[in-house]
Amino acid sequence: MGKVVCVLYDDPIDGYPTSYARDDLPKIDRYPDGQSLPTPKAIDFTPGHLLGSVSGELGLRKYVESLGHEFVVTSSKDGPDSELEKHLADAEVVISQPFWPAYLTAERIARAPKLKLALTAGIGSDHVDLQAAIDRGITVAEVTYCNSNSVAEHVVMMVLGLVRNYIPSYNWVLKGGWNIADCVARSYDVEGMHVGTVAAGRIGLRVLRLLKPFGMHLHYTDRHRLPAEVEQELDLTWHETPQDMYPHCDVVTLNCPLHPETEHMVNDQTLKLFRRGAYLVNTARGKLCDRDAIARALESGQLAGYAGDVWFPQPAPRDHPWRTMPHHGMTPHISGTSLSAQARYAAGTREILECHFEGRPIRDEYLIVQGGNLAGVGAHSYSKGNATGGSDEAAKFEKVD
Amino acid sequence: MGKVVCVLYDDPIDGYPTSYARDDLPKIDRYPDGQSLPTPKAIDFTPGHLLGSVSGELGLRKYVESLGHEFVVTSSKDGPDSELEKHLADAEVVISQPFWPAYLTAERIARAPKLKLALTAGIGSDHVDLQAAIDRGITVAEVTYCNSNSVAEHVVMMVLGLVRNYIPSYNWVLKGGWNIADCVARSYDVEGMHVGTVAAGRIGLRVLRLLKPFGMHLHYTDRHRLPAEVEQELDLTWHETPQDMYPHCDVVTLNCPLHPETEHMVNDQTLKLFRRGAYLVNTARGKLCDRDAIARALESGQLAGYAGDVWFPQPAPRDHPWRTMPHHGMTPHISGTSLSAQARYAAGTREILECHFEGRPIRDEYLIVQGGNLAGVGAHSYSKGNATGGSDEAAKFEKVD
Repeated sequence: MGKVVCVLYDDPIDGYPTSYARDDLPKIDRYPDGQSLPTPKAIDFTPGHLLGSVSGELGLRKYVESLGHEFVVTSSKDGPDSELEKHLADAEVVISQPFWPAYLTAERIARAPKLKLALTAGIGSDHVDLQAAIDRGITVAEVTYCNSNSVAEHVVMMVLGLVRNYIPSYNWVLKGGWNIADCVARSYDVEGMHVGTVAAGRIGLRVLRLLKPFGMHLHYTDRHRLPAEVEQELDLTWHETPQDMYPHCDVVTLNCPLHPETEHMVNDQTLKLFRRGAYLVNTARGKLCDRDAIARALESGQLAGYAGDVWFPQPAPRDHPWRTMPHHGMTPHISGTSLSAQARYAAGTREILECHFEGRPIRDEYLIVQGGNLAGVGAHSYSKGNATGGSDEAAKFEKVD
Repeated sequence: MGKVVCVLYDDPIDGYPTSYARDDLPKIDRYPDGQSLPTPKAIDFTPGHLLGSVSGELGLRKYVESLGHEFVVTSSKDGPDSELEKHLADAEVVISQPFWPAYLTAERIARAPKLKLALTAGIGSDHVDLQAAIDRGITVAEVTYCNSNSVAEHVVMMVLGLVRNYIPSYNWVLKGGWNIADCVARSYDVEGMHVGTVAAGRIGLRVLRLLKPFGMHLHYTDRHRLPAEVEQELDLTWHETPQDMYPHCDVVTLNCPLHPETEHMVNDQTLKLFRRGAYLVNTARGKLCDRDAIARALESGQLAGYAGDVWFPQPAPRDHPWRTMPHHGMTPHISGTSLSAQARYAAGTREILECHFEGRPIRDEYLIVQGGNLAGVGAHSYSKGNATGGSDEAAKFEKVD
């Protein structure tokens, strides 16, 4: 029988929770475009509980072991001595999450001769060398839409937080002050501002819809133009390239996948196209931005704020400049792993595993690579090639308790 | 000639700004209900600059002095030795802001025999003893709508911040960690949750409109029921009383004025009606809530989070429990004094002063009390009586630099 290796993030520092802030999760009927929620035959977990950490096991152990497979769960993923590395030789399935990515480089794929399925419990498979997967005939799948709305909520939260100067103002409360002027000398309303998204897929379009009633002017750039009726409904301005869009925007949000053409698309040169005092929110992938150029733009005032939850590498080392640069509103990579999102991606992972082990086709909308080529949503959103190559850097991260 | 006393908050600790994060403010054409923006004959300030602090002077000095009046600007407002107290005897107009309220109690009004106009540069005149103003024939006016959208943005920001657990997750970035599970063990999506507003006036209704596309279920309670077409458009559920609404809501937001009937409406008893793990956001007035009952509900887990920017008294003393209670996302009172809002309320204050000094009628929508009775919006939103009475407590605040 085969081996399923599941790479998950560590449990909370005080241990796996015994109680939760809330008793249940709201019911969602379906995704906004009509796509159905994950449809596994059964689930063995409690929605609303922590599933994405080691003890949560994505609720999969019972199912995987019932089929006679070995089920390995670990958070140890980086460097030659990692648990992941030890199990590569006989892994049939590797499950990983973007928040705690198991970088499947070409070298690792070469050391995993039995690997048939690289499964992302979440969205975004750039931690897999897609070209190597194509060449080896490995299937790459992810749980499309499972956390798109979660990420869009995070984007709106961060846009409001930056523009209104939330966190510095909160900190005045903790310090015991009532320094209104210090709080508001950098606080604006979003109403009337121009916001633009790079890519208007599930997340980018959702962000536009969420921001519409705020009275913001909406812009987008995408290789695929949206239907005319959507452009009209939201009064969207389309721009052919990101560079064309930047000069029109007070707020820019990146919602495109990472691939060789988008890597470092925001850099010293393109930042010059931004309006002085623009805000940038990136919940897509850290490598879309030149790390040091972002810090420089915040220091010079070219950017008024930067927020997001994606870094390169992940985990971000303790000395990553985005932890300490001015006017940032960063979080660790969490936007797509709210407890709400975990319930959906755990169910979607189960659905994909059921298809894999029963020899049924995986939903087309979940596929990135199959049969030696980009497939499904992969053909729409990704390019061939490699945007990973970060496992060594990630190994530098030291744990903080 | 008369004396105009303008009570404003202190300048930033490093002095009045010489530069700003952004070069200008977005243009807004009119308020959502069609009400026109403030229409002073002229303004003497730069929109986007800090106007609400002492050196900003609301941009009024040139105008007031050109009429031959004395113009006093001070942040000293509490206690018998305050500057405000010294000037009460011959003040014709007292201008104050809710963020830094000059409490005009009955006793102070009795010591201000020449007072004709109590003008709120902002919205919310509960710092004025309205009954005393009615009895004395003093006009009370505020700049209706000037910052309603600003506050609504703040509400949505805080709802998202609490539900998604933003600030604790941000703090993990600063601490150098990558503790995903610690961040997300209390992180949820708002999608599918039920949110209810107490009062659906300019702010409350705006909040509902802003949250609609998030896929939240919308509830409200108000003494005035909204038009059927609005209820239908937003798929609103109306409840006769707050107590009827609380059990249906995952998120409750308070957007009603403070008056004797709403004081301490959220208390130990009514908190029992909330769902366990509900979130409460109060950007309306601190005294709507029983201070210690809120802290107790957060400690017991009955509330999963509390945020807002209103306190009692203001400034909040250093030992105010809302500064240190768990799971809060408080700011000082700033939601309505973004630089964007300041430009509007400075213009509105100028408009009202022009009307006052030229003997022209003040816009009905700006009036709270006139001619010995509630008037204008005051007749809609306020009750007679007194909800102030806090100037002595406020005097306890110690400045923090």
